[in-house]
Amino acid sequence: MNITVIGAGNMGSGFVKQLAKAGHQVRVTARDLTKAQALAAVQAGVTAVPAGQALGDSQVVIVATGYADAVPALKALGPLEGRIVVDITNPLTADYMGLTLGFDTSAAEEIAKAVPSAHVVKAFNTVLAQVLADGPSFADGQTVPVFYAGDDERAKQTVRALAESIGFKPVDAGGLKNARYLEPLAGLNIYFAYGAGQGTQIAPTWIHRV
Amino acid sequence: MNITVIGAGNMGSGFVKQLAKAGHQVRVTARDLTKAQALAAVQAGVTAVPAGQALGDSQVVIVATGYADAVPALKALGPLEGRIVVDITNPLTADYMGLTLGFDTSAAEEIAKAVPSAHVVKAFNTVLAQVLADGPSFADGQTVPVFYAGDDERAKQTVRALAESIGFKPVDAGGLKNARYLEPLAGLNIYFAYGAGQGTQIAPTWIHRV
Repeated sequence: MNITVIGAGNMGSGFVKQLAKAGHQVRVTARDLTKAQALAAVQAGVTAVPAGQALGDSQVVIVATGYADAVPALKALGPLEGRIVVDITNPLTADYMGLTLGFDTSAAEEIAKAVPSAHVVKAFNTVLAQVLADGPSFADGQTVPVFYAGDDERAKQTVRALAESIGFKPVDAGGLKNARYLEPLAGLNIYFAYGAGQGTQIAPTWIHRV
Repeated sequence: MNITVIGAGNMGSGFVKQLAKAGHQVRVTARDLTKAQALAAVQAGVTAVPAGQALGDSQVVIVATGYADAVPALKALGPLEGRIVVDITNPLTADYMGLTLGFDTSAAEEIAKAVPSAHVVKAFNTVLAQVLADGPSFADGQTVPVFYAGDDERAKQTVRALAESIGFKPVDAGGLKNARYLEPLAGLNIYFAYGAGQGTQIAPTWIHRV
């Protein structure tokens, strides 16, 4: 394919490298064009171009800028009629620990406000009922994780022990505010189970390279 | 532990079963007390009680109701001073395909509004830069997934092929609105990598029982 990559930072340079290696024709542009040129210099099939010339006949445009720069960077390419724009951005807060969009509150925080004398811990919300009923052992020796988030450490340790006592793998997901991540995670889990028809014996987890 | 479970539906009955099996003392209450009694009848260590008597000396209260019922159900228990409340709810819309809290918009949808002639596909946002740079092969033969969401089927197929061409495992995550799930998923990924110190060679995926 012919592909335009906007941005020559960590993600942009990763895309340029991987796409060129796979044989795609890559145009790369960046606010600092010398960075784009540095990428093009070391890889066949890669051309560094100013924004105004970056679209060409590319079917696909990958926006590898920060979210705040994405729209201006796209507009700088010219008309995008029918092109495919791959949005890889995340609308992160400055400290990377939150999102600036769709991150206003969560069920857990609302419940905590309503019962302020209790220690609320978000947990088990990504475990589908059928998975809970049939237990935490999945294929290939994998154990279903229970993500738990809360603001009281002792309460979290208790919930951790509770999850362990029934065989799940507890994973500390931070403060109660991170329910704003865990609830959408469950939403996606439910989408895969019911919306995409994968069925109810699935669970989200994290994998590592090592 | 002594544990109170509120709710005798799918999740509540799963908890009662698993907790009792692990040797916990379980009090279960439900709007329809006969359902709680049916659970208690078949499992040792389980008592069915009306809400007003459900707290007792339980350290932990698991709210296995829908989100809308969680607060009234908790308040019906009486004072919760110092108790641990495990919130397993998800604030789902009636069709289960969205959240009623923190689900207003996403970077992808904002970008799509700004460049309406393009086909925007959310993708690669859960792939950390280091993972992209070093490639998709993880431990135990696992391949890092690329979740993609968009409203144009042909554009999605192109992005799917693109992800495949560089070795990632493409996973259809539905319409562009599901960027509201994928962006928090990336947020949690970034929290694990940087906030929790797990490092940048991690990725979210889904596991299956089979």
